Amino acid sequence: MRAVPLRFDEKDRVLWVLDQRRLPQEEVWDAVRDASQAAEAIRSMRVRGAPAIAMAAAYGMVLAHLGGEDPEKADAALRVSRPTAVNLSYALDKIRPAWHDTGKVLVLAAEVRAEIEATDRAIDLSGASVLRGQVLTHCNTGALATGAYGTALGAIIEAYEQGRVSHVWVDETRPYLQGARLTSYELQAASVPATLITDSMAATFMAKGEVDAIMVGVDRMALNGDFANKIGTYSLAVLAHHHGIPFYPALPLSSVDPHLATGDGIPIEERSPDEVTQFRGQSIAPVGFPARHPAFDVTPHHLVTGIVTEKGVLYPPFEERLRQAVAPAPEPA
Amino acid sequence: MRAVPLRFDEKDRVLWVLDQRRLPQEEVWDAVRDASQAAEAIRSMRVRGAPAIAMAAAYGMVLAHLGGEDPEKADAALRVSRPTAVNLSYALDKIRPAWHDTGKVLVLAAEVRAEIEATDRAIDLSGASVLRGQVLTHCNTGALATGAYGTALGAIIEAYEQGRVSHVWVDETRPYLQGARLTSYELQAASVPATLITDSMAATFMAKGEVDAIMVGVDRMALNGDFANKIGTYSLAVLAHHHGIPFYPALPLSSVDPHLATGDGIPIEERSPDEVTQFRGQSIAPVGFPARHPAFDVTPHHLVTGIVTEKGVLYPPFEERLRQAVAPAPEPA
Repeated sequence: MRAVPLRFDEKDRVLWVLDQRRLPQEEVWDAVRDASQAAEAIRSMRVRGAPAIAMAAAYGMVLAHLGGEDPEKADAALRVSRPTAVNLSYALDKIRPAWHDTGKVLVLAAEVRAEIEATDRAIDLSGASVLRGQVLTHCNTGALATGAYGTALGAIIEAYEQGRVSHVWVDETRPYLQGARLTSYELQAASVPATLITDSMAATFMAKGEVDAIMVGVDRMALNGDFANKIGTYSLAVLAHHHGIPFYPALPLSSVDPHLATGDGIPIEERSPDEVTQFRGQSIAPVGFPARHPAFDVTPHHLVTGIVTEKGVLYPPFEERLRQAVAPAPEPA
Repeated sequence: MRAVPLRFDEKDRVLWVLDQRRLPQEEVWDAVRDASQAAEAIRSMRVRGAPAIAMAAAYGMVLAHLGGEDPEKADAALRVSRPTAVNLSYALDKIRPAWHDTGKVLVLAAEVRAEIEATDRAIDLSGASVLRGQVLTHCNTGALATGAYGTALGAIIEAYEQGRVSHVWVDETRPYLQGARLTSYELQAASVPATLITDSMAATFMAKGEVDAIMVGVDRMALNGDFANKIGTYSLAVLAHHHGIPFYPALPLSSVDPHLATGDGIPIEERSPDEVTQFRGQSIAPVGFPARHPAFDVTPHHLVTGIVTEKGVLYPPFEERLRQAVAPAPEPA
């Protein structure tokens, strides 16, 4: 069974968004009826994960067209709804040339969705081929994050179904607990044996020899293989390196930013410290105590074993191979 | 201002225990009137931290004597209340010879307390001497943990008061959040500039050059310098090593177990998985999802820069120096 985060209803002109903040306790679907509501659904993290955000933005533009909104304003509102994901800009750029043709906008949004499905499937087959035994993952990179089959988590589930993977360690992924709430939910739905741990326990199970590989998602990757992903990813990469455990980011090539030479240029979203000091409205720190909340971190390419993409697994030297992989296919002769 | 976790009232035969599980929101003091209640206060983590546990156990024996309990049974109940801390056995062993002399039991319990105060003070002065700039710490090792001035956190506060340390990074310390709830509370009380982060963020601030040293507590240390401490400590040690950041455990020499050659022999308490899957009664994972909860991990000595003790800072080779430090002082001629 696969989870589904978004459903577009063309007849009623509404994008139904599963409020992932309330999983796994409640399945609440919110109606999104215009571009600003789509931007708000992204900003508030009802919908999250770079490809699913791109899908929500594409349908946000569809809603803008159906509602006769100014496409310039709609595009601008969606473009700034989350700062780190490059897929968001990719989807909006794809739709931009069709701004004055509502039918075409709908077709292009459906194309964004179909591309994500095909890409996820190819990533999952590539990723599964390098996994075995016990795998550790961080955050949520499954169907809920992409709207299709998932990237890193899709590959892990595929590898389990192939009999290659026996057990999954799920990092809870503070502060937002995407691992505890969402990855656990998806693994339970797919009947994969799995165990939840706090982020701080990962090193212990690595030292005991109970982690055979780590696979994580990617928010944005530079051309040299440096990549931004959910806070805590860099820590896992260093720990994997120390313990000699293979470490794989999995991503659609649309998450590679062709304008970025290295990870130094990736903007890191700093979210509200309240998300660290409070838990569902309850304070876990003294009132007024300062906190930091960088939502992402950057992992340098030298800690990466291989990069899992829809065009296969890329091994070092990454720069040359990533440039080839992201280059447009040559025109047929 | 220093926090106080325990108050013994000899006249009313009651040990008042601050319920640290409810900090920082509420200051609730529970009355402990016999050894089994003292054991329960330790087991349930109302009182925590190896020296404070030892102090609670010592006064638990005082209560047993004042109440005419069987000292054998009282000792046995207290001895198994937490499995990892060696200080607990130390305090109970100290009191054992006086089992049939109530006045002496009270004197020995007061000695346990006075020793902790003197030891903390010496540790704090040693520890402060190696700190500068921004320091990161994990769990809670302050006055709340020892009943006196604290070990690692006491040294950090001392170093701040000496003008050596400018800012403290506080790991929240999942799953029990001792950092968020207790260390923050103590640093706020002592007016030390500090910032709360999730455990998964520590590596990011290390990579940015914003962590100049790491100081943590010790639950139990082997003679070669390997040590058990709160889950997440080993992860920090590996990360510190990778980033070239000095890493110091701070402990009273009573936390060194003279019967343990290496950390392999340290028993690790596995607590209820509900403490990982639930947060104050709210589930953060799907119902029935498996979790693990090792409460401690073991850090090997080769990741340690120096060991802060009441006899100064010990540098490698640790084994020889630890054996010397824990050996009884020679008799005066």
